[in-house]
Amino acid sequence: MIKITLPDGSVREYQQNTTPFEVAQSISQGLARNVISASFNKTTVETKTPLTTDGTLTLYTWNDDEGKKAFWHSSAHVLAQALQELYPGIKLTIGPAIENGFYYDVDFGEHKISDNDFKKIEDKMLEIARGKHEFSMREVSKQDALNLYKNEKNPYKVELIENLTDGDITFCDHDNFSDLCRGGHIPNTGIIKAVKLMSVAGAYWRGNEKNPQLTRVYGISFPKQKDLKEYLALLEEAKKRDHRKLGKELQLFTFSKKVGQGLPLWLPKGAALRERLENFLKKAQQKAGYEQVVSPHIGQKELYVTSGHYAKYGEDSFQPIQTPSEGEEFLLKPMNCPHHCEIYNAISWSYRDLPKRFAEFGTVYRYEQSGELHGLTRVRGFTQDDAHIFCTPDQLDDEFKKVIDLVLYVFGSLGFENFTAQVSLRDPENKEKYIGSEENWEKAERAIINAAKEKELNYVIETGEAAFYGPKLDFMVKDALGRSWQLGTIQVDYNLPERFDLTYKGADNEEHRPVMIHRAPFGSMERFIAILLEHTGGNFPLWLMPEQAIILSLSEKYENYTQKVLNSLENHEIRSLVDNRSETMGKKIREAEVNKIPYMLIVGEQEEKDGTVSVRKHGGEDLGSMKVEEFAKLIASEVNASQKTFEV
Amino acid sequence: MIKITLPDGSVREYQQNTTPFEVAQSISQGLARNVISASFNKTTVETKTPLTTDGTLTLYTWNDDEGKKAFWHSSAHVLAQALQELYPGIKLTIGPAIENGFYYDVDFGEHKISDNDFKKIEDKMLEIARGKHEFSMREVSKQDALNLYKNEKNPYKVELIENLTDGDITFCDHDNFSDLCRGGHIPNTGIIKAVKLMSVAGAYWRGNEKNPQLTRVYGISFPKQKDLKEYLALLEEAKKRDHRKLGKELQLFTFSKKVGQGLPLWLPKGAALRERLENFLKKAQQKAGYEQVVSPHIGQKELYVTSGHYAKYGEDSFQPIQTPSEGEEFLLKPMNCPHHCEIYNAISWSYRDLPKRFAEFGTVYRYEQSGELHGLTRVRGFTQDDAHIFCTPDQLDDEFKKVIDLVLYVFGSLGFENFTAQVSLRDPENKEKYIGSEENWEKAERAIINAAKEKELNYVIETGEAAFYGPKLDFMVKDALGRSWQLGTIQVDYNLPERFDLTYKGADNEEHRPVMIHRAPFGSMERFIAILLEHTGGNFPLWLMPEQAIILSLSEKYENYTQKVLNSLENHEIRSLVDNRSETMGKKIREAEVNKIPYMLIVGEQEEKDGTVSVRKHGGEDLGSMKVEEFAKLIASEVNASQKTFEV
Repeated sequence: MIKITLPDGSVREYQQNTTPFEVAQSISQGLARNVISASFNKTTVETKTPLTTDGTLTLYTWNDDEGKKAFWHSSAHVLAQALQELYPGIKLTIGPAIENGFYYDVDFGEHKISDNDFKKIEDKMLEIARGKHEFSMREVSKQDALNLYKNEKNPYKVELIENLTDGDITFCDHDNFSDLCRGGHIPNTGIIKAVKLMSVAGAYWRGNEKNPQLTRVYGISFPKQKDLKEYLALLEEAKKRDHRKLGKELQLFTFSKKVGQGLPLWLPKGAALRERLENFLKKAQQKAGYEQVVSPHIGQKELYVTSGHYAKYGEDSFQPIQTPSEGEEFLLKPMNCPHHCEIYNAISWSYRDLPKRFAEFGTVYRYEQSGELHGLTRVRGFTQDDAHIFCTPDQLDDEFKKVIDLVLYVFGSLGFENFTAQVSLRDPENKEKYIGSEENWEKAERAIINAAKEKELNYVIETGEAAFYGPKLDFMVKDALGRSWQLGTIQVDYNLPERFDLTYKGADNEEHRPVMIHRAPFGSMERFIAILLEHTGGNFPLWLMPEQAIILSLSEKYENYTQKVLNSLENHEIRSLVDNRSETMGKKIREAEVNKIPYMLIVGEQEEKDGTVSVRKHGGEDLGSMKVEEFAKLIASEVNASQKTFEV
Repeated sequence: MIKITLPDGSVREYQQNTTPFEVAQSISQGLARNVISASFNKTTVETKTPLTTDGTLTLYTWNDDEGKKAFWHSSAHVLAQALQELYPGIKLTIGPAIENGFYYDVDFGEHKISDNDFKKIEDKMLEIARGKHEFSMREVSKQDALNLYKNEKNPYKVELIENLTDGDITFCDHDNFSDLCRGGHIPNTGIIKAVKLMSVAGAYWRGNEKNPQLTRVYGISFPKQKDLKEYLALLEEAKKRDHRKLGKELQLFTFSKKVGQGLPLWLPKGAALRERLENFLKKAQQKAGYEQVVSPHIGQKELYVTSGHYAKYGEDSFQPIQTPSEGEEFLLKPMNCPHHCEIYNAISWSYRDLPKRFAEFGTVYRYEQSGELHGLTRVRGFTQDDAHIFCTPDQLDDEFKKVIDLVLYVFGSLGFENFTAQVSLRDPENKEKYIGSEENWEKAERAIINAAKEKELNYVIETGEAAFYGPKLDFMVKDALGRSWQLGTIQVDYNLPERFDLTYKGADNEEHRPVMIHRAPFGSMERFIAILLEHTGGNFPLWLMPEQAIILSLSEKYENYTQKVLNSLENHEIRSLVDNRSETMGKKIREAEVNKIPYMLIVGEQEEKDGTVSVRKHGGEDLGSMKVEEFAKLIASEVNASQKTFEV
């Protein structure tokens, strides 16, 4: 008999050689139907691998990331088989699961493949899938494996095997197809009910441009046809909401080849949006006792050597800036913290002055390879909504809660209702890896967990995921398309206070070391605005919209009245536009829709006579005609409903 | 007879060989008494130089810069004579007039000189001055001049003479003292009534550190003892108002060796002050139709090659930033204009869209040698209150006037009432030096002059002082100590629109080139705040003060009441502090005075009973006791009085 521990901590006894599938069966038939992969003692196993020792078993279904991984990895095998049957003589290389689906890198030799061939390949894959072929692992000797691929004249697999040791080489078989494989499959091909090839692209063997170029075939698969349909609809919606597309259409930001890639230029509407977000946070931060500071965008190399950032970012980032004389060296700042430490150090603090909370919308620069750049989500220069709290260890508890309050306020005001938190603690078995005293670590970890509990966060604890300098809490939000984004970090730091020799005078009249908290609710303005664009599709909360209303006049005859309405709107501080062109009302409405303007105020003869406007909401709802004052009230109440006041 | 033209344009006839002094006599005895130097046909002459041809004569008194220059240059002769009499054998080199006074660089040989010797030297100078010795110029042959100084074993003068040509070598004699000299003296030493040596410093011969080190003796002199007294008082006051000293005392900003010299770090109070200034200008700019943009702090080297800034700043500024791969090169931006041109270029404009006014508080970086750095007035990174107006040539007139309105509003709100303007036009005799069409230059120059006239500026026109790319208007303000500072520039630019190929579609449906206006009312936030600090001595206009009021409690007993008053002040948005310490009221008041807090609200038993505060103004004025509401009204009316609303 062996003892199997399950994730909920329960322990069950089984016969030796019981398989994960059988364990699932022993729990419930429902689970057995859905289990598609498993891990045993943190190592991926097959669902029919016999378990021979005591250990911890986790069973995965399609709803788990690990389940999807097995599903897609297995689908890559099916893709490889299909390709080999359709294009005899091709050479297979590797085919992993990725975040959304899988790919296989293939040397197609004289064959060519394009989108036009996708239908044929998908059909072949589904045909194989319907065969319900079981996946089974088999150990092969290095010599046999080498011989096999040498016979097939496949230098790629030969190279892979040469780097493996005898005993570690396994193949996976299904149907009449075998492939070198480390394992982690679904029980059989029959579970794969829907398949879609997404694209082909060139890819160098092992990512090295000196190697031969292979063809990478991307695909995705699902256990239900409906899942595929939903996924494709989501992709379509995501394309419409792509922040790069919306950013251009709404004239929020641009990039210039001359200025340089990855360096956004904010157009007036985007800069105003950004400023509204900044002011919104500044206001809440002021209430929460933060003070703004301003620091330069460069610092001496020595500053970052002191902080440790040079060791982390130095070689791989923008290189040092030399001076024409005096031999100084500066770096673009990759982080604001060293500057804030020096600001802290400019004044002698007493424990009575703490906590000090220094905030700055600080623009930092980090080099990214051009291939890694992506709109506003991956850039070379970005502005953090940064702040550093310097406090006594005893204040950590309270400060942590206050930061969570602020983050929750920000998420709430911006329509992110669906989020989770991850608490990263140190590895209790490797305590020597971490800087800071035992007492302080315990205090800090307890502070974070207490705060997460008290604020009723939906959180998970990840042991061993803390940075070497302190534990942290990260927020993950789900956007309207169900995609997860990491936003908002709260990080405790015992390291920088040491490195910068930060002190305060305690009640005992001795010098003490403060603790530092790094925190950024938005993370970066650029990335946050990108996410907000994709989350809202450009239909921001009303208080944030570049334009809140547009006056559409039925003809130029009403120009005077239009101007009167505009002035009145401006007096009510409603951001407004006028479309006075001699175009059809249909065209004007369509353009206002494209520009995502929330309210269209139509004015013509009747409205001028009555002193009213006819209000049409973005999307089409007709609110009828009303006085501008009524409309202003409507706007004010909508703004107040979405942006609550931050209460400390 | 010769014809002499005077600065007012009048022409008078005189006998040949009439001297400037005699011309002055012919005009008025008052002028003759005060004239101390002169220039003829733009060349400096002595007041007793016989005039032999027709020409333009300007007579200078102590009140003219040229008059002071002659006065101080002549004083340097007297200093040299005094030093030579007191320290026989010393070697004289050069002794020019400077902005405030004069200096003489001397090789003292075995003699040593320090502050302790100043009295003795000043006495000797005054003794010489009282002799009323006339200054007179004398031409000397190169050989004679060389022989003279070779005999004296003075290699410095020998070197100077070797670089001159025969016929150009003149000496100035007074009393029994002669010196190599190009001329420009006051009539006689008797006019020098007050002398003060300021300091001694080391200085390399010809500024080259490979040359021998000389001793530079700095001094200043005046025609009246009273002038010297005033000057010394001013120096004393300037020292008190030194923005570096006040910045530290008021905790506005700091510098850190680790971050790097010339890179200010703004502490909370300074950052808040800066932000208030920025918001003040933003608000006015928004009314004036400006739109904020945001651009990165770096750009590809190519961007600045295109703009021409690389040719100007490249070699002498921060060196290019390399990337770890991909071979790109970036520069810290020395100017925001190239970025704004690229922002303009991101959208296709029609003449109907213009003018576009892009504003940014853009931080730029320019290398300065460490010896040149000075507090916030000479830094390596600074934030310009920059904006670029892109308009049609026909809109220049109107735009220029609007910019002047904005600048005058800024100066008015900040207490700079004393300012002049300089209009810089092109040199009409070297038109080929300038870029842009004849028609556009005429339009632009006319626009500036018209605007200056219409806005009733106190302006001077400087022909030939325009940049090669356009005419400009600079504002000079006088601070409370009478010192002049250049603030606010408005610059027309025909060059960047060409270099960046900026266009708009005209009413004729053709592409046209817009004109660009660069403008910055503050100039730079750093420099402006420095000047404002020195102008106000830290007693900013109330709307700008970091703290507007401090509550001083007579004892800790009144803590509850103090808190109530504080809450009430905060509800009225009055920035307030509390001093609840158990210190004497005298000490609390003294500290509040040092911290320049405009209003002190004293609370004790009586105030608590009456629900009032006793108000004491910074400086000592007692306003008696009043309710907080009354005090809030007082503050509000003072704020409104100093910061008017900008009306377009």
